[in-house]
Amino acid sequence: MGRVTERRKVIRIRDGAVSSRPDTLVAEEPLEIRLNGKPLAITMRTPGDDFALATGFLVSEGVLAQQSDLQNIVYCAGATVDGSNTYNVVDVKTAPDVVIPDITLERNVYTTSSCGLCGKASLDAVRTTTRWPVSDTPPVRIDPDLLADLPDRLRAAQRVFDRTGGLHAAALFTEHGELLDIREDVGRHNAVDKLIGRALQQGDLPLSRVVLLVSGRASFELAQKAVMAGIPVLAAVSAPSSLAVDLAAETGLTLIGFLRGRSMNVYAGEHRLTLAATASQS
Amino acid sequence: MGRVTERRKVIRIRDGAVSSRPDTLVAEEPLEIRLNGKPLAITMRTPGDDFALATGFLVSEGVLAQQSDLQNIVYCAGATVDGSNTYNVVDVKTAPDVVIPDITLERNVYTTSSCGLCGKASLDAVRTTTRWPVSDTPPVRIDPDLLADLPDRLRAAQRVFDRTGGLHAAALFTEHGELLDIREDVGRHNAVDKLIGRALQQGDLPLSRVVLLVSGRASFELAQKAVMAGIPVLAAVSAPSSLAVDLAAETGLTLIGFLRGRSMNVYAGEHRLTLAATASQS
Repeated sequence: MGRVTERRKVIRIRDGAVSSRPDTLVAEEPLEIRLNGKPLAITMRTPGDDFALATGFLVSEGVLAQQSDLQNIVYCAGATVDGSNTYNVVDVKTAPDVVIPDITLERNVYTTSSCGLCGKASLDAVRTTTRWPVSDTPPVRIDPDLLADLPDRLRAAQRVFDRTGGLHAAALFTEHGELLDIREDVGRHNAVDKLIGRALQQGDLPLSRVVLLVSGRASFELAQKAVMAGIPVLAAVSAPSSLAVDLAAETGLTLIGFLRGRSMNVYAGEHRLTLAATASQS
Repeated sequence: MGRVTERRKVIRIRDGAVSSRPDTLVAEEPLEIRLNGKPLAITMRTPGDDFALATGFLVSEGVLAQQSDLQNIVYCAGATVDGSNTYNVVDVKTAPDVVIPDITLERNVYTTSSCGLCGKASLDAVRTTTRWPVSDTPPVRIDPDLLADLPDRLRAAQRVFDRTGGLHAAALFTEHGELLDIREDVGRHNAVDKLIGRALQQGDLPLSRVVLLVSGRASFELAQKAVMAGIPVLAAVSAPSSLAVDLAAETGLTLIGFLRGRSMNVYAGEHRLTLAATASQS
């Protein structure tokens, strides 16, 4: 997979000094996701793990929920003018018994048909669509000190970022802090889709005992992806949005933001953190 | 506009000490953009400047290019079950002579019809669609020292970020470094759309003498938006992607990344920087 990064000439200016040298950039290419032969969505992504990306995207959209829902995935070959394969179009074929919900071409769109579009409708759509409601029984219990260690470990595991500085990252950890998987992509949502898609392909959904860590902000979209995969804990290095917090509160997701150093903010689902024990240490 | 931020209770953990207090979060709500009454796209955005956002989005998509292309914009009122207006659906009506291109529901999609989807096709689509090719004559000429000052000025002008830590920002500066406009949003692409949409509404397109500064990475999508508005210089605080660099090189856009302190990388269009003068200072 030589396409994850690309080389370009760059002019560097450092305190007034000008030099020219080759630079490594993160690759970005469009990926068209087809569902049973029909174009569904296009996302700009870093090439690699495309089947996992398409699979995870379809988990987020409520099409796939378990390994047996997926029949096969292929690159759409030979459809260019010259018959070559660009490896930028994938077709996902679902098992015969999978009911395809009424989804549109746009990401994050559940309720385009009515004009009463609002955050509440978005929350309701996720809650009614997910086949893996957060149901970790007994609840995952996590020490804040364990959480505090995760960003450094995410950063240490980011291979492409070190070369390009240009990638979002997302990782899955066990409730005991063991790194399960990490993905990097120009789009944070793609990195999460790749994690969740890989998990579905391995028969690991719902991810009911894991922590999802993302390198940036926690948007509604990322909280939605966590909920759709049955993930009980979403932690972000930066700030969450209001709608992400609302979704977490409604679905029982633990949402942590500003996870930096020994500090963090808990916006929902604090029952999964061993706060009492931690407080007594202070 | 009280909806730009929202208050939520948060549990703070600081070095083991646990406390609870209200926190200010950046608001996130879906916005449906309709074109002449037909649903076109939904984006998750920070409420506010919605008409500018819709207008700028349609500039990026090649629908609008000048003030006279726009007939009017309205919030789609009274279409909820209870007849209320959520202020989350806008309908953009174009002037009678505006030809609507064949755009799809997905952002950044130009060529869904063929399977030969690739970066090259994306570049070609922007080049053939834009009505404002980069044509600053004489070329804008900018001192790197002036560019180096812009990120601090962007940060100083970010009002909502100070309260929430959760917003992307984008700003327009004149070639002489004067701040023209700044927008903040949960989505960087939205912040740029709001800038460009406002400019169109004021009759200021093409933006042929300005610098667009964005707070994060420079993706293909952001480079595309700059090109579609006729902006000659795009500067980003973080890394560009390969496709953003390719688009800049093909269209004549000056693309600057890693603009931090007194340093920056110039990926394309270096003829707009007064490099010789700067180098002689070193």
